[in-house]
Amino acid sequence: MTITPPELSVFESLESEVRSYCRGWPAVFDRAQGSWLHDEDGHAYLDFFSGAGALNYGHNNPVLKRALLDYLERDGITHGLDMSTTAKRRFLTSFQDVVLRPRELDYKVMFPGPTGTNAVEAALKLARKVKGREAIVSFTNAFHGMSLGALAVTGNAFKRAGAGIPLVHGTPMPFDHYLDDQTPDFLWFERLLEDQGSGLNRPAAVIVETIQGEGGINVARPQWLRQLAELCERRDMLLIVDDIQMGCGRTGPFFSFEEAGITPDIVTLSKSIGGYGMPMSLTLFKPELDIWEPGEHNGTFRGNNPAFVTATAALDTYWADGQMEKQTLARGDQVESAMRDILREHRDTKADFRGRGLVWGLEFADKSRAAKVCARAFELGLLLETSGPQSEVVKLLPALTIGPDELDEGLRITARAVRETA
Amino acid sequence: MTITPPELSVFESLESEVRSYCRGWPAVFDRAQGSWLHDEDGHAYLDFFSGAGALNYGHNNPVLKRALLDYLERDGITHGLDMSTTAKRRFLTSFQDVVLRPRELDYKVMFPGPTGTNAVEAALKLARKVKGREAIVSFTNAFHGMSLGALAVTGNAFKRAGAGIPLVHGTPMPFDHYLDDQTPDFLWFERLLEDQGSGLNRPAAVIVETIQGEGGINVARPQWLRQLAELCERRDMLLIVDDIQMGCGRTGPFFSFEEAGITPDIVTLSKSIGGYGMPMSLTLFKPELDIWEPGEHNGTFRGNNPAFVTATAALDTYWADGQMEKQTLARGDQVESAMRDILREHRDTKADFRGRGLVWGLEFADKSRAAKVCARAFELGLLLETSGPQSEVVKLLPALTIGPDELDEGLRITARAVRETA
Amino acid sequence: MTITPPELSVFESLESEVRSYCRGWPAVFDRAQGSWLHDEDGHAYLDFFSGAGALNYGHNNPVLKRALLDYLERDGITHGLDMSTTAKRRFLTSFQDVVLRPRELDYKVMFPGPTGTNAVEAALKLARKVKGREAIVSFTNAFHGMSLGALAVTGNAFKRAGAGIPLVHGTPMPFDHYLDDQTPDFLWFERLLEDQGSGLNRPAAVIVETIQGEGGINVARPQWLRQLAELCERRDMLLIVDDIQMGCGRTGPFFSFEEAGITPDIVTLSKSIGGYGMPMSLTLFKPELDIWEPGEHNGTFRGNNPAFVTATAALDTYWADGQMEKQTLARGDQVESAMRDILREHRDTKADFRGRGLVWGLEFADKSRAAKVCARAFELGLLLETSGPQSEVVKLLPALTIGPDELDEGLRITARAVRETA
Amino acid sequence: MTITPPELSVFESLESEVRSYCRGWPAVFDRAQGSWLHDEDGHAYLDFFSGAGALNYGHNNPVLKRALLDYLERDGITHGLDMSTTAKRRFLTSFQDVVLRPRELDYKVMFPGPTGTNAVEAALKLARKVKGREAIVSFTNAFHGMSLGALAVTGNAFKRAGAGIPLVHGTPMPFDHYLDDQTPDFLWFERLLEDQGSGLNRPAAVIVETIQGEGGINVARPQWLRQLAELCERRDMLLIVDDIQMGCGRTGPFFSFEEAGITPDIVTLSKSIGGYGMPMSLTLFKPELDIWEPGEHNGTFRGNNPAFVTATAALDTYWADGQMEKQTLARGDQVESAMRDILREHRDTKADFRGRGLVWGLEFADKSRAAKVCARAFELGLLLETSGPQSEVVKLLPALTIGPDELDEGLRITARAVRETA
Repeated sequence: MTITPPELSVFESLESEVRSYCRGWPAVFDRAQGSWLHDEDGHAYLDFFSGAGALNYGHNNPVLKRALLDYLERDGITHGLDMSTTAKRRFLTSFQDVVLRPRELDYKVMFPGPTGTNAVEAALKLARKVKGREAIVSFTNAFHGMSLGALAVTGNAFKRAGAGIPLVHGTPMPFDHYLDDQTPDFLWFERLLEDQGSGLNRPAAVIVETIQGEGGINVARPQWLRQLAELCERRDMLLIVDDIQMGCGRTGPFFSFEEAGITPDIVTLSKSIGGYGMPMSLTLFKPELDIWEPGEHNGTFRGNNPAFVTATAALDTYWADGQMEKQTLARGDQVESAMRDILREHRDTKADFRGRGLVWGLEFADKSRAAKVCARAFELGLLLETSGPQSEVVKLLPALTIGPDELDEGLRITARAVRETA
Repeated sequence: MTITPPELSVFESLESEVRSYCRGWPAVFDRAQGSWLHDEDGHAYLDFFSGAGALNYGHNNPVLKRALLDYLERDGITHGLDMSTTAKRRFLTSFQDVVLRPRELDYKVMFPGPTGTNAVEAALKLARKVKGREAIVSFTNAFHGMSLGALAVTGNAFKRAGAGIPLVHGTPMPFDHYLDDQTPDFLWFERLLEDQGSGLNRPAAVIVETIQGEGGINVARPQWLRQLAELCERRDMLLIVDDIQMGCGRTGPFFSFEEAGITPDIVTLSKSIGGYGMPMSLTLFKPELDIWEPGEHNGTFRGNNPAFVTATAALDTYWADGQMEKQTLARGDQVESAMRDILREHRDTKADFRGRGLVWGLEFADKSRAAKVCARAFELGLLLETSGPQSEVVKLLPALTIGPDELDEGLRITARAVRETA
Repeated sequence: MTITPPELSVFESLESEVRSYCRGWPAVFDRAQGSWLHDEDGHAYLDFFSGAGALNYGHNNPVLKRALLDYLERDGITHGLDMSTTAKRRFLTSFQDVVLRPRELDYKVMFPGPTGTNAVEAALKLARKVKGREAIVSFTNAFHGMSLGALAVTGNAFKRAGAGIPLVHGTPMPFDHYLDDQTPDFLWFERLLEDQGSGLNRPAAVIVETIQGEGGINVARPQWLRQLAELCERRDMLLIVDDIQMGCGRTGPFFSFEEAGITPDIVTLSKSIGGYGMPMSLTLFKPELDIWEPGEHNGTFRGNNPAFVTATAALDTYWADGQMEKQTLARGDQVESAMRDILREHRDTKADFRGRGLVWGLEFADKSRAAKVCARAFELGLLLETSGPQSEVVKLLPALTIGPDELDEGLRITARAVRETA
Repeated sequence: MTITPPELSVFESLESEVRSYCRGWPAVFDRAQGSWLHDEDGHAYLDFFSGAGALNYGHNNPVLKRALLDYLERDGITHGLDMSTTAKRRFLTSFQDVVLRPRELDYKVMFPGPTGTNAVEAALKLARKVKGREAIVSFTNAFHGMSLGALAVTGNAFKRAGAGIPLVHGTPMPFDHYLDDQTPDFLWFERLLEDQGSGLNRPAAVIVETIQGEGGINVARPQWLRQLAELCERRDMLLIVDDIQMGCGRTGPFFSFEEAGITPDIVTLSKSIGGYGMPMSLTLFKPELDIWEPGEHNGTFRGNNPAFVTATAALDTYWADGQMEKQTLARGDQVESAMRDILREHRDTKADFRGRGLVWGLEFADKSRAAKVCARAFELGLLLETSGPQSEVVKLLPALTIGPDELDEGLRITARAVRETA
C-alpha cells in the first residue's frame, strides 16, 4: 500500500501540539466498519487498537447502529442530565438483568459523567467520604485518568508532570510481578499497614487494574488479586477495580475480575460500556457505600442517552448468554498461538508476550523495537499501538467481534512487521 | 395537567442516591423536540433549562439531526481518539472560518476530553505549566466542575466537601458586586498582588465566568471584566474565561466575553459546542501558550466525531452571520420585560432579577421561594431550575432557538408560578 | 566612633550564606549589659532591637542573672524534657499567681518546645484537632515562624519561597487598615464565611498578632480586635493570638490583647517569656481545648529549666504589681514625642509613625530610607532594625528596662540618622 | 527505695494533658550531677535516658559548667540572634578544628534555630530548593520532629495524626532489616526510581537515621548505608543524615555515619551538640549546596550563646583526641555483655537486643513487657525509657561519661527489673 501525504494542514496549524495518535498514524480517517477503518484516500486499515478499548464491538456495529438510528429518528431524548428517561430505564434494566443479577452482584449504579476519568474521580471521592481518609494506594504503572484526582493515582511520570502541582495523597505499591519473584507478594504493603510506625497514611482505598493496559499489558494473577481483596477486607480499605479498559469482555468475562472470583467494593466502567464508542461511564458500588447526597457529584453529560441506547443493545445482543466470553477466549488462543510463533521465529531475540482474552502485549529486549513494529504495521495497513512507560510493548487490542480470518490477517501483518524491524 | 406517578422503581432501587434532577422533575422523559420534552405518559413540558445550557439549539434540532443521521448512516468514524478525521477537519475549518477568524482570534484548539471539567482541568494544567506556579485565583460562587482540579476552584461548599480531601491551590476573590458597592473593584486583589508580604501565593492564572450560571446568575459588568483582564496582563497572570455555560451564544455573541472586548489567554467551551447535546469540549489558548508535549494530556473520548458533525452543522447554520446574536438579544428583551412585569406585580415583595441574552435569574428575599416557584412550574408543565449557593435564584435558560410565542408561554407560566407561591 | 574591620573570617568561610543580622551590623559582639552591647574592639552600642523582642528586661539583667547563677551553681536540673521539676513548679506557680489569676484567665499551659515556631505549630495542630478542619485564616503581613506549619500562615513571599513546597491550608485576610479605610472592616471575611458558595474552606482558627512586628509595626485597633474576636465566636473559629513578640509587656500590659479586652482561645508566648534571652515558649489555651493525648506533641528542649528560673525571676520582679506597665507606657510617650519631633523636622518628607508601649515604627515615602537610617544609626552606635515586606519601616524596640536618659540618647541618634540620610 | 507521693498539683491542674515523661516518672526532680538525678524528696536516680540523648556528657558536667558560669558572670552575650559574637567564633573555630577538619569534611554550618525539628526543617527546605522538587523519601519508623515539615517524614501514626492536616510530600521506604531478609536491599526503591511509570514523585532527598532511636533502636548496617549513599548519588537525590540523637558520639565516633565511611550531603545535629542540655542545633551541608539567600530561614533563638560556650568546651574537652570514641566502644561492650547475660538468663523468653556504642535496645516477644521493665526500674531508682511504635523496646541511653561501676549498677538494675517482670 502506498500512502500519499494526506491533507493535514488545518490539524497542524490549528490543533494544539498535544495531539498524539494522529502523529503515529498520518492519515485522515473517514469511515469505519467492524474491524476496518478507511481513510479519505481510500486506504483500508485493519484495527488492532479498537479505540484504546472503547470499540469492543467494532466500529459502527450494525445492531447497535440500527438501535441508535431508530432512537435518533424518533427524537428520543439526546441530552438528559440525570433525569429519568425511558432510554436510561431500559439500560438500567438490561444492566441489572444481563450483567449484575447473573453474577449475583448487588451494585448501585452511578452515572458520574461520560468519561473514564469522571468515573475514577467519583470512585475516589466516594471511597474517601466513606472512610474519612485521604490516602489512596495505587500500583506501579497504573493508569486511571488525566484529571487531577485520577492523575494522582496514575504512575506515568510524563503525564504526572503535566499536573503542574505536586500530586499527593497517592502511594504506589508494587503490581504483581513487579519485584523479583523471590519477594513475597504484599510483604511490603502488609508491613506498612500493620506497623503503626511505618509512616504510610492509612488508605481509604486501593485502586487496581486487573491487567494494566497503558502500563504495559501487565497481567495480575488471580491469586494475587484474591490476596489483594483479602488484604483490603482485613485492613478496612475499599477495593476499587478500574475496569475501564479491561471490563466489558476484553479479557473474556464481562468483568475482568470475575476470573479471580473477587467482588470489588467499587468498580469503574467506561470505554466500551456505551458499545458504539460514544462517551459513557459508570461507577458501581456496594449498596452500603451509597452515602452520596443528591447532587454531591454531578456533570452535564452524565445522561448521554444515545449511548444508553447503544449500551443496552450491546448488552442484550452480546451478553445475554455466555457466547461472547467463549468466543473471546477462543480468539485469545489464536493470538497466543501466533505470539508463540513469533517468539519461536525470533528465538535469538530476547522477547516476551503476555495477555488474556483479547488483550496482548509483545515486548522485546530492545525497548525501541515496539515503536518500529507499530510504524511498520501502519505502513502495512494495520493499526497497532505501543504501551508501557517507555512505549516498549506492542499492544494488541482487536475488537471482540473480529472474525477469525481478520484476526489471522492482523497477526500475520504483526509477524511481518516484527520480522522487518529485526 | 395531571401527573400520574411514573414508574420509577428501577431508578430508585438501582441508581445511586447521587441522582438529583430526576427528584425535582418526577417524570420519565422519552422524546424531545425543540423546546419541548415529552414524558412517557404523554405529558409535554416546555423547557426553560436547556440541559443546563447544553441545548442552545433546542432538542434534536432538525438541521443537526439530518447531518448526524447522514453521518451515522454512512458509517462515518464514531470514535476517533485524537486521530485526524474528515469530521474533525470539517469542524476545525468551520470553527476557524465562522468563529475565530471573524473575531480576529488566533487561538489554538485542544480537544481535552468531552466534558466541561476535562476542559477546565486542561486549562489549569496548561496555565500552571506555562507559568511554573501552582496557585489559581477563582471567584466567589464560581462553578468549574467536579473533578479534583476543577472542584478546587469551585465555590460551592457542599460540592467541595464531596472531594474527601482538602482542596488547595485555589483562592477566591470577590466577583463583581460581591461586596458592598462602596469598595473599589479589585482593591483587595490588587493589594494582595502588589504587597510582597500579603501571603497570597503568586497565581499562575485567574479563572472566571462572565456570568455565573450555577452561582446564581451573577452578571459581571464589561468594565469589571476589562479591569480584570488588565490586572492579569499587568501582574503576569493568565486569564482563563470558562465559557462552558455562557459561551456558544447564550448571552448573545458567540463568546460571552465579546461584549467586554477582552481576549482571554485561555477559553473553555463545552455544553452547547457540540450542538446536539452530545459530549464535546474545547480548550482554546493563544498560540504562544501551546507548550504541550504530544500526549501530555489525553483522554479516550476526546474525538467524539458525531459531536464534531453536529457542532459543524450548528456553526454553519447559526453563526455564519450575525442573525443568531440579534435574535438572542431580542428574545432577551422579551424576558427582561416579563421579569419587570413580575416585579411590578409583586412590588411588595423584595425581589430582583438580572441577566443578559437568554440567561436570567429571578431572586426573592425569601430564599426558599425559588424552589417553590420551580416546583409549581413543573406542575404547570414548565422546566425551571434554581441556582445559587442556597438555590435561591430561579434560573431561566431557554433554548436560543425558542420561538417568541413559546418564550411568552413559558414566561406566563413563570409569572403564574410566582403568583401561586406568594 | 571609628570602626576598624572586625575579624570575620571564620564566619565568612564557615557559616552559611543564610546568616543575616551579622551583615548589617559588622561587628563581633562580646559582652552586654542592660541596653548596651560591647564588641570585642571595645565599642559600645545602644540596643534598640532587644533581640527582636527577646530581651524585654535588657541584656544579662542582674536580678535574673543572680537567680540563674545560683541555680546553675547548685546543679539544678538543666535539661528536663517534660519531667516535673522544682524549677518548673516555681515557674508554673508564678505564672498562675502573677499572670493568669489577676487577669482571670484559666488557660492551660503547654511547653511546646523552646522556640516561637514550636509554639505556633502546637497552636495550629491543636486548633485543627479541636475543630476537625484544616484551614487557617491569617492576615496580610503576618509573621509566625519558619517551620512549615507556621510558615504557611506567614505573609512574606521571600520567606515563603524558602519552603520548597507550595504552602497551603492558609488564607490571608486584610489586617486592620490594610484596605482603604472606606471598606468596612471584616466585610470580605464575613461574606466569605456566611456564603456557602464563597469557596473559602471553613477555617478551624484565625491567627493574629495585635501589632505586626515583622510585618511593619502595623497596629490593630482594639475595636478591630474585638470585632475579630466576636466574629470568631459567632462563626465557630478559634482565635489564636500570637503574642510572641508583642506579649511579655512589649505594648504595656503583660498580654498585648488586654487593651482590647478580649480573651483569645489560644495564645502563644516566646521570646521574652524566658526573660534572659534563653529559648523558651508557651502555648496557652482554654481548658476545654486541652484534648491533647499525652505525648501527642513533644520535643527535646521543652523543659529548658534555666529558662524557667529566669522566667520566674522576671515575673516575680516585674509583674507582681502594675509598675512595669505604667513605666512602659510612660517610656512610650517619650518615644512618641520624639517621633513627632522627627516628623515635624521633616515636614516636607512624607513620613509616618505608629506604635504602642515600646514598639514603634517610622516609615518614609522613600522606602529605601529605612535601611539607610539603620545603617547610619549603627555607625553612630545604635542598633536599629528595619521591618516590613520591603524593609521600609524603622523599628524601635528598646528594652522595657531602658532608662529615660538612655532612651533619649537613642532617640537623638535616631533623629540624627534620619537627618543625615535626608 | 520508698517513694512518697510527690506534690504534683500545679502540674496536674495547670499543665496541659500533653505532658508525658512526668507520668512515667512521678517525681519532682530538683538537682542532677553526672549520671544522677535527685528529686526534691532526696531520692537519687541513675540516668539511663540522658535527656533522650541531649546529655551525652552527663548532667551539669563540671568542665562545661565552669565555662558557662565564667561566661555568664562576665556578662557574655546571651541572646545573639545571628550576630557575630566571640562565643560563636570560638565555637565555629573548635567545630572546624576538632570535628570537621580531622574528618576531611568541608561542610558549611547553619544555625537553624535551637531545636532538632528546626534543623530538620532547614535541611528539607534546602534540599527542595537545591533540587527544585518537593518529594522526600524517609524510612519506616523514622523520627525527625514535630513541626509540620519534619512530622511529614516521621513514621509514627499517633504523632502524625496530631498534625490535623494530611501529611504529604513524604514517602516511606523500608529501613534496613524491615522486610524479610530474603528481599534484596533497595530493590523496591531502585525499581521505583528507574521506572518512569512507577508513580513515585522524583525525590529531592532521602532522610535517614543511622540508628533509629525513637523507632525502636533499629540499627542500619554500614553496607546498607553505603548502598543508600551510592543510590542517592546515582539517582541525583541528596542524602540527609539526621544525626540529632545518634551524633555527638552516641555510637562511638563523633558522627554516627563515620563507621560506614559515607559523606552525607546534609547533616543535622542537635541534642548533645550544646553539651550542657541547652537548646542548640546545626544543619551542615556541602558548600555547593549553600544557595540560601541571607535571612531566607531565620529564628529568634538561633544564637543561643551560652550553648555555644558549653558546646565549645565539650568539643575541646572530649573530642580533641580519640579517647571518647574508644571509651564509648568499651562501655558499649560492657552493655552488650550484660544484654547477653539477660538473654541467657531468660533463654525461654523470646527476646532480642541490638545497639552500638552507648545506644541499646532490648525487646521481648511480649510487647507490653518493655513498659513494665521501665516502671520497675524506676521503682528501683533507674531511669529507663521505652521506644518503638508500640513502646515495645527498652532503650538504654546512658551518658557517654558514665563510669564503669555506675554503668554496671544500672545494668544490674535492668537485669533485676527484667527478672521481676517475668
